[in-house]
Amino acid sequence: MIKEDAQRIIKEVIASALPDAAVARALEGKRFAGRVYLVAVGKAAWQMAHAAVAALDGRVEDGVVITKYGHAKGAIGQLRIREAGHPVPDENSFAATREALALTANLRAEDAVLFLLSGGGSALFEQPCIPEAELQDVTQQLLACGADIVEMNTVRKRLSKVKGGRFGLHCAPAQVFSIVLSDIVGDPLDMIASGPAAADASTCAQALEICKKYSLRLSQDAREALRQETPKALPNVETVVTGSVRQLCTKAAEVCEALGYAPVILTDSLTCVAREAGRFLSAVARFHAPAKKPLAFIAGGETVVKLTGTGLGGRNQELALAAAEGIAGLENCALFSVGSDGTDGPTDAAGGYVDGGTQQALLAQNLRIADVLMQNDAYHALQACDGLIMTGPTGTNVNDFAVLLLR
Amino acid sequence: MIKEDAQRIIKEVIASALPDAAVARALEGKRFAGRVYLVAVGKAAWQMAHAAVAALDGRVEDGVVITKYGHAKGAIGQLRIREAGHPVPDENSFAATREALALTANLRAEDAVLFLLSGGGSALFEQPCIPEAELQDVTQQLLACGADIVEMNTVRKRLSKVKGGRFGLHCAPAQVFSIVLSDIVGDPLDMIASGPAAADASTCAQALEICKKYSLRLSQDAREALRQETPKALPNVETVVTGSVRQLCTKAAEVCEALGYAPVILTDSLTCVAREAGRFLSAVARFHAPAKKPLAFIAGGETVVKLTGTGLGGRNQELALAAAEGIAGLENCALFSVGSDGTDGPTDAAGGYVDGGTQQALLAQNLRIADVLMQNDAYHALQACDGLIMTGPTGTNVNDFAVLLLR
Repeated sequence: MIKEDAQRIIKEVIASALPDAAVARALEGKRFAGRVYLVAVGKAAWQMAHAAVAALDGRVEDGVVITKYGHAKGAIGQLRIREAGHPVPDENSFAATREALALTANLRAEDAVLFLLSGGGSALFEQPCIPEAELQDVTQQLLACGADIVEMNTVRKRLSKVKGGRFGLHCAPAQVFSIVLSDIVGDPLDMIASGPAAADASTCAQALEICKKYSLRLSQDAREALRQETPKALPNVETVVTGSVRQLCTKAAEVCEALGYAPVILTDSLTCVAREAGRFLSAVARFHAPAKKPLAFIAGGETVVKLTGTGLGGRNQELALAAAEGIAGLENCALFSVGSDGTDGPTDAAGGYVDGGTQQALLAQNLRIADVLMQNDAYHALQACDGLIMTGPTGTNVNDFAVLLLR
Repeated sequence: MIKEDAQRIIKEVIASALPDAAVARALEGKRFAGRVYLVAVGKAAWQMAHAAVAALDGRVEDGVVITKYGHAKGAIGQLRIREAGHPVPDENSFAATREALALTANLRAEDAVLFLLSGGGSALFEQPCIPEAELQDVTQQLLACGADIVEMNTVRKRLSKVKGGRFGLHCAPAQVFSIVLSDIVGDPLDMIASGPAAADASTCAQALEICKKYSLRLSQDAREALRQETPKALPNVETVVTGSVRQLCTKAAEVCEALGYAPVILTDSLTCVAREAGRFLSAVARFHAPAKKPLAFIAGGETVVKLTGTGLGGRNQELALAAAEGIAGLENCALFSVGSDGTDGPTDAAGGYVDGGTQQALLAQNLRIADVLMQNDAYHALQACDGLIMTGPTGTNVNDFAVLLLR
């Protein structure tokens, strides 16, 4: 019964996070006055473009869709579908980006660019201001001297014609309506695909400081590029973040409520160690069980696995299995954790489901949870007690969510 | 302002957990028909006895107080105050226990034994059924063969005249009113001081099984003692657990509410890694900030410190410092974690207090939180940003509580 509730929650939450649903929701009630051009970039670009064209029902004039090799699923009206290199940009990335820039050049103020962005866009959408060989050389130098990701981005944004808000600026005076499918906890718009349509907070002074700090070798052209400021405000851009982990949590709360549970969202930015998150949630369970009325605690985010063994598993499976110890013996109590992409760690499972009887079921098979966790082998333990959640690859990737159910 | 709230919460919660307040609360409205004898055992025995005598206002006929060396603070009426060995029982433990047994022998059904129990009672209250040398030998054998704490207790309870409920049985037909100041998460009555007045769930069959499993060398007397069953029910005993971590949390919620915060108790049995608990709570803060109305999340328990360095700190200080990273930049947000005994780890601080500005304040002094945690040096970092909570030793020990405040 409680397991059926869990299955329904998982199914509905993932369905709501699919690119199709997310894009349709973002475009609901949206009206465009002039011509509409579409640029879709990222691993979910094809699905997002497909959904947008359907939702706008013939309004899309022309468009370029840039996705990873093997991710295009056929023609979408008259759109130009392009596949390119990821995670390293290649000639096809540059060529497709050139097409998108040409399509969105010289637009009028009443025109609109529908910009659909998803994870992987950094490599797929790129047009360097300097020869590609030098861009690679600068990247190598930054890596070699131990620059952090913020320093790296501060320099690299200035060597690109589309990153750090420059694509948004390029489209002006046309309006840009940007729909972002976020795959980073906290939805930092300038980080997702290096923020082609997001105002940039970093400055030229900082970029020059970094070059000095690490004594980077740079050509005259690169030095000149680093002096060009990125846009600090983009009044022509409107951004909607959709399919984020916050929406996963909100949807989970909604489904829980429909099933009769009083939902409490604890967080949507969990980043701690997976097994400790499971232990924390099991301590929450112990305090609230037996529940006077059905309760659901929801925690979204992306935990990390501490590697101590060589077994098979993933962060969601570890979180769930660690919780099984703390909720052992509790009746009407279950906990599950699921990756929205359907593949948790290097496994074919999306996550794990445990309840008050899981520890006992494992002990009956001579499996001690502490030993299993030490081996990072949650997959096989959950397999042994029917605790694997199998959804198959879902076509989206907006982090994970864990739910504790008490009834 | 938010820091003043924190200080008031800490002060009031600890005051409510002091043995005096706890005992007075437990005795409120309690009436005894016949004579009242007092037996107080544990590190807080003196304070508990002092409070009980005051609360019962002349009703206590006679009594024995057994506490650790240096813990008696003077005479209490006619009570016999005894100090004895801890953590290893000594001759004074046995002599004082004999006095208590004599005092409570041959009582009548209308008489009452007021039994006041606190941490440390296992060593202070002991009367072996076998020569002490053999008891030590059995303990050594069990330790050497790797027996766990449950196996250890199952055997040892049967070699004692007072443990495993036997003191409660000894007092019959008199009524035993037992007030327990719990220092173990979850308040397992048969574990606190080995449960002198708590029905015992373990069996002779289990004890013999353990002797067989580890091939223990035992005298004829010891074998005979292991065949004597411990009481499975004690109808003459009434137990009140007071000053437990659950009460800490309830009191914290009460004070938070009086200060205008809507309180949410997450758990009273947190046992995960201290720094990860801090990270979890900071993720809760990020989701709920900025708060529409003042909110307080409360988590009690006893976390553990993962040792990775050689610095100075304690579990409460680590929890708070780890949270400082996650709440950095949040306005009107603070988090603190406090040990109710007033001494967190090997330090003179009770715990730590952090807010949205703590990380910045530390960076200004070249202290990076990740580095400090790696060194287990939370004490010096918190000292550098006025984040140490100093209460001095409080005279109680009922675990820790952490509170996240958002306003």
